[in-house]
Formats: sequence, C-alpha cells, structure tokens
Amino acid sequence: MSLLQPKSIAVIGASAVKTKVGGQIMTRLSRFSGKVYPVNPQHKRLYGQRCYPSIISIPTPVDQAIIAIPAPLVPAAVADCIHKAVQSIVIISSGFSEAGAVGSQREEEIKAMIKPTRTKILGPNCFGYANPSLNLDLTFAKTTPPQGNIALISQSGAIGSYLFDWAQTEHLGFSKFISLGNRLGVGENDLLKILAQDKLTKVIALYLESFKNPSEFLAIASRVNRIKPIIVIFGGRSSVGRQAAQSHTAALSPPTALVDTLIKQSGSLQANSLEELTNLLEIFSLEPPLHDNDLAIVTNAGGPGILAADTAAAVKLDVSRPVDVFGDALARDFSAAFNQVIKDKVKDAFLIILSPQTMTQLEATCTAIVKQFSLVKKPIIVSLLGGEITAPAKEILRRQQIATIDFPQSAVRYLSRLYQYWHQHRHFYLYPRRFPVCRKKLISLPYGLLTWRQKVKLTKLFNLNLVKTCFAQENNLSAIINDLGYPLVLKSDPSELIHRTGNKAIYLNLNSFSAVKQRFKQLKQKLSLVLAQPQIGDGQEIFLGISREGNFPPLLTFGSGGIYAEVYRDIKQIFLPVNPSILTKLVKQTKIGQILSGYRGLPKINLQPLIKIVLNLQKLVLAYPSITKIDINPVIIRQNQAVIVDIKITVSTLTA
Amino acid sequence: MSLLQPKSIAVIGASAVKTKVGGQIMTRLSRFSGKVYPVNPQHKRLYGQRCYPSIISIPTPVDQAIIAIPAPLVPAAVADCIHKAVQSIVIISSGFSEAGAVGSQREEEIKAMIKPTRTKILGPNCFGYANPSLNLDLTFAKTTPPQGNIALISQSGAIGSYLFDWAQTEHLGFSKFISLGNRLGVGENDLLKILAQDKLTKVIALYLESFKNPSEFLAIASRVNRIKPIIVIFGGRSSVGRQAAQSHTAALSPPTALVDTLIKQSGSLQANSLEELTNLLEIFSLEPPLHDNDLAIVTNAGGPGILAADTAAAVKLDVSRPVDVFGDALARDFSAAFNQVIKDKVKDAFLIILSPQTMTQLEATCTAIVKQFSLVKKPIIVSLLGGEITAPAKEILRRQQIATIDFPQSAVRYLSRLYQYWHQHRHFYLYPRRFPVCRKKLISLPYGLLTWRQKVKLTKLFNLNLVKTCFAQENNLSAIINDLGYPLVLKSDPSELIHRTGNKAIYLNLNSFSAVKQRFKQLKQKLSLVLAQPQIGDGQEIFLGISREGNFPPLLTFGSGGIYAEVYRDIKQIFLPVNPSILTKLVKQTKIGQILSGYRGLPKINLQPLIKIVLNLQKLVLAYPSITKIDINPVIIRQNQAVIVDIKITVSTLTA
Repeated sequence: MSLLQPKSIAVIGASAVKTKVGGQIMTRLSRFSGKVYPVNPQHKRLYGQRCYPSIISIPTPVDQAIIAIPAPLVPAAVADCIHKAVQSIVIISSGFSEAGAVGSQREEEIKAMIKPTRTKILGPNCFGYANPSLNLDLTFAKTTPPQGNIALISQSGAIGSYLFDWAQTEHLGFSKFISLGNRLGVGENDLLKILAQDKLTKVIALYLESFKNPSEFLAIASRVNRIKPIIVIFGGRSSVGRQAAQSHTAALSPPTALVDTLIKQSGSLQANSLEELTNLLEIFSLEPPLHDNDLAIVTNAGGPGILAADTAAAVKLDVSRPVDVFGDALARDFSAAFNQVIKDKVKDAFLIILSPQTMTQLEATCTAIVKQFSLVKKPIIVSLLGGEITAPAKEILRRQQIATIDFPQSAVRYLSRLYQYWHQHRHFYLYPRRFPVCRKKLISLPYGLLTWRQKVKLTKLFNLNLVKTCFAQENNLSAIINDLGYPLVLKSDPSELIHRTGNKAIYLNLNSFSAVKQRFKQLKQKLSLVLAQPQIGDGQEIFLGISREGNFPPLLTFGSGGIYAEVYRDIKQIFLPVNPSILTKLVKQTKIGQILSGYRGLPKINLQPLIKIVLNLQKLVLAYPSITKIDINPVIIRQNQAVIVDIKITVSTLTA
Repeated sequence: MSLLQPKSIAVIGASAVKTKVGGQIMTRLSRFSGKVYPVNPQHKRLYGQRCYPSIISIPTPVDQAIIAIPAPLVPAAVADCIHKAVQSIVIISSGFSEAGAVGSQREEEIKAMIKPTRTKILGPNCFGYANPSLNLDLTFAKTTPPQGNIALISQSGAIGSYLFDWAQTEHLGFSKFISLGNRLGVGENDLLKILAQDKLTKVIALYLESFKNPSEFLAIASRVNRIKPIIVIFGGRSSVGRQAAQSHTAALSPPTALVDTLIKQSGSLQANSLEELTNLLEIFSLEPPLHDNDLAIVTNAGGPGILAADTAAAVKLDVSRPVDVFGDALARDFSAAFNQVIKDKVKDAFLIILSPQTMTQLEATCTAIVKQFSLVKKPIIVSLLGGEITAPAKEILRRQQIATIDFPQSAVRYLSRLYQYWHQHRHFYLYPRRFPVCRKKLISLPYGLLTWRQKVKLTKLFNLNLVKTCFAQENNLSAIINDLGYPLVLKSDPSELIHRTGNKAIYLNLNSFSAVKQRFKQLKQKLSLVLAQPQIGDGQEIFLGISREGNFPPLLTFGSGGIYAEVYRDIKQIFLPVNPSILTKLVKQTKIGQILSGYRGLPKINLQPLIKIVLNLQKLVLAYPSITKIDINPVIIRQNQAVIVDIKITVSTLTA
C-alpha cells in the first residue's frame, strides 16, 4: 500500500502556474495531511514552502516522488529518486512508449535503473492516483474524486475524470483511483492484490485497453472475485478502436474473443459500455449481495410495471405480479404497499416505480421509502420516471444512499446482474498460479506444420486416440484394404492442402479395390502423401482447437465439427489449464454437447473418452510452449469411443 | 381528424372539484380556443359558464363529448350524445371490459348504439387525448404535453404522462397524444392513417399491449412507414406481464414471437424499453434521415472515443478514426476540428464527445457546436460525459434542438438505428390489404388431425410434392418393394404418434424383404396404419410450419429440419401472404438457407422447388381459414427437387 498511502511526497516539476500539471498537483496537495516537498531548480519558494533544486537536496527521507517534467529529463530525475531511496515514483509526464521509438528507449532506461531496487513505479503517461480517505488527489481532473467504496483502476484519465463527476452527482465515491498509464512498473494485477485487502473498497472497477499479463490476471482476478466483485470495461475491441488505443497508452489490444473469455473466466463482470459501468458501480456500491431471485415490484404506473415484469421474466428474475397502487396513489398508499412487500420474507429484492401523475406525492413517497427500507438488508432500487419534475425527489433518495435507476427495465436488468454475480460467485473456478509440469521425456519438434509421421509420434506420446492411418502407395493398396477393411477413406495430410472438400483431396466411402485404385491415382497426382483410413460410419463430429496468441495462455475451442462449427457458430472457448469438471460443463454449454447428453430422448453418449482426449491435448500443449496451434477436425464420438480423424499442429519460433 | 380537432366540446361530468377528473379537464380546457360546454345536472354554473343538465339541453350543435361519469351512467350519456349527433365521443370513465363481465356488457350496449351511426368513440377507460397545436389537453397528467413533432398513441396513461415530462426537460414535444383505453371504437390503425397525413407529425410512437387487428396493422403500418417512421414499444411479453396487462386495458397480449414478427414485418422500429423509446424519439424527432453510414467522431477523451469507435464497428457504422483533440482542448481547438469534419463531404453523421477536464470550456464549446452545425443538414449527436457539471452546457444544446445522448456508445447505437431505418425504408414490403381469392373447387375437411388419405387429396389439389407413399399390409409388402424399391422406410402417419424416434414408430434403411416384414409386424402391433415410403438418401432436411393464433394472419415458420430446428433454433418467421422474392430473402436469412445457397464452396442448390412448395402451401392455408396448423418435417431438398416426406394438418372449429 506504500504506493497509495505515502506520508511524504516530493513534487518534481512543482510549478507556480496553476494551470500547469505541476501547479495543479501542488494545489491539490494543499489538503493532504502528509509532508509535501516542491522540487524545481527555478524557484526558492513555492506555495509558501521552501522549494528544493532536486529531490536529493531534501534533508529528510521522502516516501514518494511525483514526476511532472518534460520526458527527456525524466530518466535523470528517476536516478535521483533511486539515490534518495524513495519507496515509490509516480511519473505523470508523457512522451514515452506511446510516442514512438525515442520514448520506448527512455522507458527501457528507467526499467534498467529500477530493476535492482524495490522502488515501485506508476506510469509514465498517467493521470496520477487518488486516495480520498487521506485527502490525497494527485489527478488533475475538474472534480476531486469524492470518498466512497469504489476502487477504480484505469488506462484512461478521461474515464476517471468523468466518473469523479458522475459519483459526485450520485452521492457515491471512491476508496482509491489509480491511472495506469504505460505500466512500466505497477500494473493492474499488483493493484488488484492490494485492493482485495483494502477494507475501504467494496467493488473494483477496471478500464483496460490491454492486459499486462493475462495468465496472472486470470489467477489473481479469479481469487479476488471470491472476496469482492471486479467489473471490467474494455476499450479497443474493434480495429479502429485498437489503433486509437495504441497511440493512447502504447497498448496493443488483443482480439475480442480472448478479452471476453478472459474476463468471464476470471469471474469478473464485463461492462459493455460506460452506461453499464456506472449503473453496475452504483448497484454494487450501494446494495448488499443478492443470492436469490424473487423480486417485488411496487408501481403506480400500469404500463411501466408491465414492461418491468416482462424484463424480469426475460432475465430470469421471479415476479409474482407487480403491486399496482394505481395512478392516484398518495404517499400513504405507497407506504401500505411497502409494508406489505417488506413483510413478505420470500422477497429478495425490491423495485419501486414512481411515475409523476397528478396526485403523486413525489417527495413524501421518497421520504417514506427512505424511512421504511433503511433497515431492510436487501437490495432496493427506485425508478423515478420523468424529467426535471422528479429531480428533488431523486436527491432525497441519493442523499440516503438508495439506488436510483431512471428506467424500470434497466433497474431490473441490473438487479439480475447483481443476482447472477452473487449467485455464481462461490463457484468461480480458481485459475492456477502455476501450470502443471510435464514429466514425460519429450521429443524435439521442428518449426512449421508438423508432418503426419511427427503427429503420429506426438499423439502416441500423449495417449491421443488417432485413427489407424496407413500411407497408401501403388503397391500396398491390397494390403491396406486387408488391414483396414471397407469402406475406406483416401485423403491428404491436412497440413498439405487446406480446403480439401473444395480441392477434391478427400474421397469417402470407397468400397471396392477398383475405386480405391482410381482415387489413389487421382490423389497421387496432386499430393506427395496419400493417407488411408477406415471410414467411421456414424457418430457425431466434434471440433477441437487450441491456439496461443501473444502472451495469453493457450485457448481451447470446443464445438460442433464439420460445417456446423462455422455456420452455426456452435463453439465455446476457455483458457487452459482446466480440470475435468469445468471441461464437462463447457461441453454441455454447446449445442452439440446437449445433443450428446441426450437431447429430447436421443441416445445419451458417454462423454469420458472425449474429455480424456481434451485433457491429454492440454498436457501436450502445456508441455510444448512452442506449439501455437492445434486443429482437430473432426474428433468422431460414438458410444464409449472418441477417435481423432484429422489433426494439424503448428510449431512457431515465437513462443509465448 | 374530427376526433382530434373539434371546434366545440361538451364535458359530461364537469366538476367543481379540481382534483376530480371532471374538474381537471375543465381546468385544462380554459386554454382551448374552441367552445366548451360543462354538463352536470347538479350545477347551474361552473367555471364562470352556464352548466347544462344534459348534452341535449345545449342549444347549439356540439362536435365532441367528453364523458367522465361513473360507468353505470355512461350508456345513457352515450345515447344522449347520439341523439345530439356529436361527431365523436371520448369516454374517460373506467369500469368496462377491463373490470369483468358487467363492464363488458356495458361495452356491448354502447357498441350496439354506435353501430348504425358515424360517431367515433375513443376509450372507454382512457386517459383522453391532446392536440397541443390547439392548446387542447384532455389528459390529466402532471405536465401538459409540450408542442412538437412526435405523435404518441398509448394503451397506458402513465407512459404518456411520463413522456410529457421527459419531453419538456428535453425541449421536445408532441403533435398529438391519444390514449387508446379499451378501444371500443377507435383503434391504433385508424389513428395511424390519420397521423400519416398529419403535417405536424414527423414520427409516430405506439405503446401497445395487444393489436386490435393485426392483419390491418401490417397493411397500414407497412404503408405509413413509407411516409414516416413508426416506433412501437410492446408491454405484456411475459406471462406475468400479460396477466397484468389484462387487468390494465382488458387486452390479452399475444405471444412474443408474433409481436416481434408483426412489428418487424410492418417496417416499424421496435423499442425494447422505455429508455430506448425516449432515445429513439429524440433522434427521430430532431435528426434528418441518415441514408449512409460514414460517422465522424470528435472527442477530447481518449478512452470514451475508443469505446465509441468499438461500438461503431459492432453496429456496422464506418469510423475511419476518432478525431482526438486531447484532454486540454479549448473551445477553439474543438472549433477547428468541427470545421475539418464538416468540410469532409464523405461524412454522413457526427458524434461529438465532450468530457469535462480541467481545461475544458463546456459552454463555449457547446455554443460553437450550435453555431457551426446549425446549417449542416446531417445528423449530429453530442455526448456530454458527466454529472451536474455538464447541466448548463447540455441546456444550451437542448434549447437549440441539438440531440444529446449522455453516453457515447449509446449515441452510436441510436445513430445506427437511424441509419438502418432510413437505409431500408424504401424496401419495406407492403403487406396486402386483401388476401388473394382461391378459385379451386375445394374439398370439405373434417375437424381435428387429417388422415393420410385426406392429406394426399389435399396436397394433390394444391400441387404439393408429397413423396409416393403406400399403405403397407401383410399381403402387399412384395408389391410395395417392387413399386418403391430399396431402401425402404416404414413408419406411422405423423398424426398417429408424436415422438416417433423415441417411440420406435419409424424404421429407416430397410434393404431386404425379411427386414421389411419384421419391421412391418412390429409396427402393426402399435399402429392402425403403416406407411411405406422410398428412402431419400441424401439432401438437406427443411422444416416448414404454418400456424394461426388468435386474430393474427397465418404465420410461416421456415428452418432447418430434424433435430437442428430445435437445438440450433435455426428458424425464421413471416406472416402470409408473401411473394416469391420476400420468401427467397427469408430462406437466405437462415443458416440452412446459407448452406443451400453454397456456403464456402459447398454445392449450390436450386431453391425454386422449395419456394414453389411454400407458395402452394400458402394458397392452401389461405383457401382454408379453418386450418390452424400445418407441420411439414421434413421437406427433403436436393438439386432441382424438393419432396415432402411428412405432413401433419390440424383443422379447428375456432376459425380466425
């Protein structure tokens, strides 16, 4: 926590000009109870204090240095800080890796200086941080972040800035705010660990444009979510957004599917927009956990009540029927309805819809809500439908920390997300901190696409059930037919030609010697190698894929095989390693998994042989970090048997 | 229009008590420029005017009567109105079909009185109507609807009431507001026709809990959408919502799939929530049409700009890259960026993201927006991120009719809906006002599930290609084998047993006389009729269904056959009648349609035989209104051939 609660701070680049960052920060620090040392060789005194020419000239020890000077001067200032033995450095200055090669060089220089020390660095190119409980605000936003229980970690300063203003309006606040910048040192994972232990923090929000270390994020976030909720909003999902992000914080955003899978698998909630983020933060900041789903709705408006009930049904919350107090309800009528639903022990959460009609007593009704629900330890949201007319009533609720969401249908949606989070949060899968070690004697692999012979060796080593395959030649066709039997398949190694159906590099259902011979000749003209396999008649086709991208852990793709994988997009993805029970759950989330599990009276297939293939495949890919891609299409699965018919393996020099 | 712009109004039930509805209406009418006659036998004078004991005692003609008296007295009052020959009657009173049998009886009485006249009736159980251009407000909402270009037709008074307040805050307004109530007389379809011609109306909003006449809605709304946009929000999609709606306006909400298909097929936009409704209304009220999709984004906030670009990519708007003026941009920096994007002729719409940072000049920047964009005839939305701090700036934009949507990602989403609507609106399919007449000599059908013999007759009559089928008997098996050839299928009539796979009522792939004989014996024990068909080896299986629900037109369901129809939910639906080109489009929207059309190098199948089957099926179902359900599962489609293998037809006494 030394980073976020220093007792003394030196401001390198302190300025007399209040509109400059170094002036802004000095102004903000006037409220800080710790010691502040302005550092600037051009001044003797600043803000009524002695000003030092360098951090080294400060006579006493200093916990933290804030650096807000031009980028070319930063490395020397960092050297001074290390010399002074500060515990942490916050580099506000931009002009580093986000600005091109010269800037990257500066970052490398600083990294090298820091490496042998225990000094923590936040930034560069960051928006500072804030610890409102200490009146410590090192940002330069228009609004000072109000104090509260939300911790915000952000790769965008503007989003922090916006949320401070939003929180002030909503009477919410922050336990901590940290702008990440280029993450030369401290990253989101370090902060998650700190915030998990922070008693002032109830919910953690993350705005990211990339993950500093995705595997570590999975391991840490899945643990933190057992303690408190993490909400992630991710920028740079599109190619345009990705380009913009790169010039923003030097972050290269990963593909969307990886981002979504990572957030989901970590047990975090994903906010798809700033709107969702603010509403989720309001709910998670104000409401207790919601473990069950019986929702009571009290409304004085028929239509909006009906719409809210419709939404509840769509998001699987139980509403027996909205309590309609009718358009002419006075505050006392509402009160009676509140008493009724509060008494009902079955109800887990409350939504009150208040629509301003001629007779409606907005303020009196809101005062009644505050009074009657203040001791109820269950989630409650009030939807005040209307424009300016409802503002004073809304203020009564906000001041008393009652959640208000303008639209009743949105309120229901956010309640359902609260429920889903808390309902599932005990079942979060803890992603391992360390991967299992493979004790097999490994064979060495060349780079590029592996040949069939290499794949046979590798699958044997990892007990992967590859169908018996022969190399067909002019003179061994009869022997192969004797060995494998009819019907026979002749085809290419998938590594050789990609779209076999289009390119006629596969012949199925060969039932006579003459057919086999004819097809062999046709294939031999195009291919260096012709494979012969027995045709597996019935069974379901499954697609299995593993891929490694950037510094993400290996991603498993499971789904329908053949054309259905593509056309119906019937696939699910998960990062490895996983255990058999998680894997079985994943399989059952796909349509093909439902079919195999005996959909509507279809025969139920034993999934164990398939699960065994995936687990062995996992061993293989974890043992070989140089394998970047495996495509198995299809595995054919039948009662008590799963057979790999086709496999393609890519080995790359660019290991993860 | 006589309903919405009367020159003289009698208020039956005028009251001296201002909190009563009859008092509210009198108060509101003080601003109306036409003549107002209070009617109440208990008063001589009311609101400084002579008060009449009955409408008949008014000496001059009266255009419109408003009735706000207890329900039991209403039928007599209506009789008086008819005697007085008013053009229209608005019944505010509740206590009719929404309240049970006695109320329904009252409605019937009134209907019978009205039938021989040309008098129009709005209500009963309604919230009045408003015509702001005439200062005419017969509602009793807290806020009088401000004048503007939105027409609102609603089955909920509270939703009107809410929207009036919302519009006032947003500086938007209404051309007309009409509360439908129980729709004894005037319904949404009559009003759509009127509003289509109303010069003051730019966009029409509908809140419905049921359709008064769905076929007519399809015919009328598809025409109105060629002239101006219709936005529909529907309440009562869930079973709880449906129950609540029934006690609300006596409306029995139809199943969701029907509602969604009806709205979509009519070319209307569906708002899924009140939030969507208000944002769509703001955009459609303020913005010109958007026929192309190149979006310019100007932002002073990196993160929100990236998020907006991501959303644009997701909703298929083109953003080359957000113009980032950076966090410290002054109004003049924004101005320069505005000039740059306005000059760019390629840009079709603009999104400006304004995030309050230390240097940001909120008001000055908004004033620049108003000045620079006022002459640009293209859609523009401003996202002002922030809470109270942004309120004065927002007010500048609202007052000048510049659309503001708080969240940039929402703004992008609504721009995409504007684009989708205008991009497609010339291609709206006009649903026919009259259905084609069948000139065939029809056979008469019994009620219930038709037998195979009856189905053979019917399919022959309508040229539906049913596979050749024989009735298998102990003594004709060899003859059948000779006739149909191997492999053979033995099965039940689908009308006889429902889940044939589970119940072993079908045997495929019979290749020998002994197999046929054995399976025949097994089936004969369970079935009264055993059908024999040749097995159609390859080809794709298609599901075709037709169903009639309530007073909706026949609904066609098209999709993958067999298990894929259910598991993958690969179906599309449309109301009949349709023409071949619409049908072909529908087919291609399904996954199976994409496979048939030659997905990724697969052989392309001729769709014509399939389309012909659907068109003939359409003729059949339109000729027989008593047919409520047809299931064809599957049609097998192969190159140049489509064959019906199984068909089930239900005839009902409850005709539509």
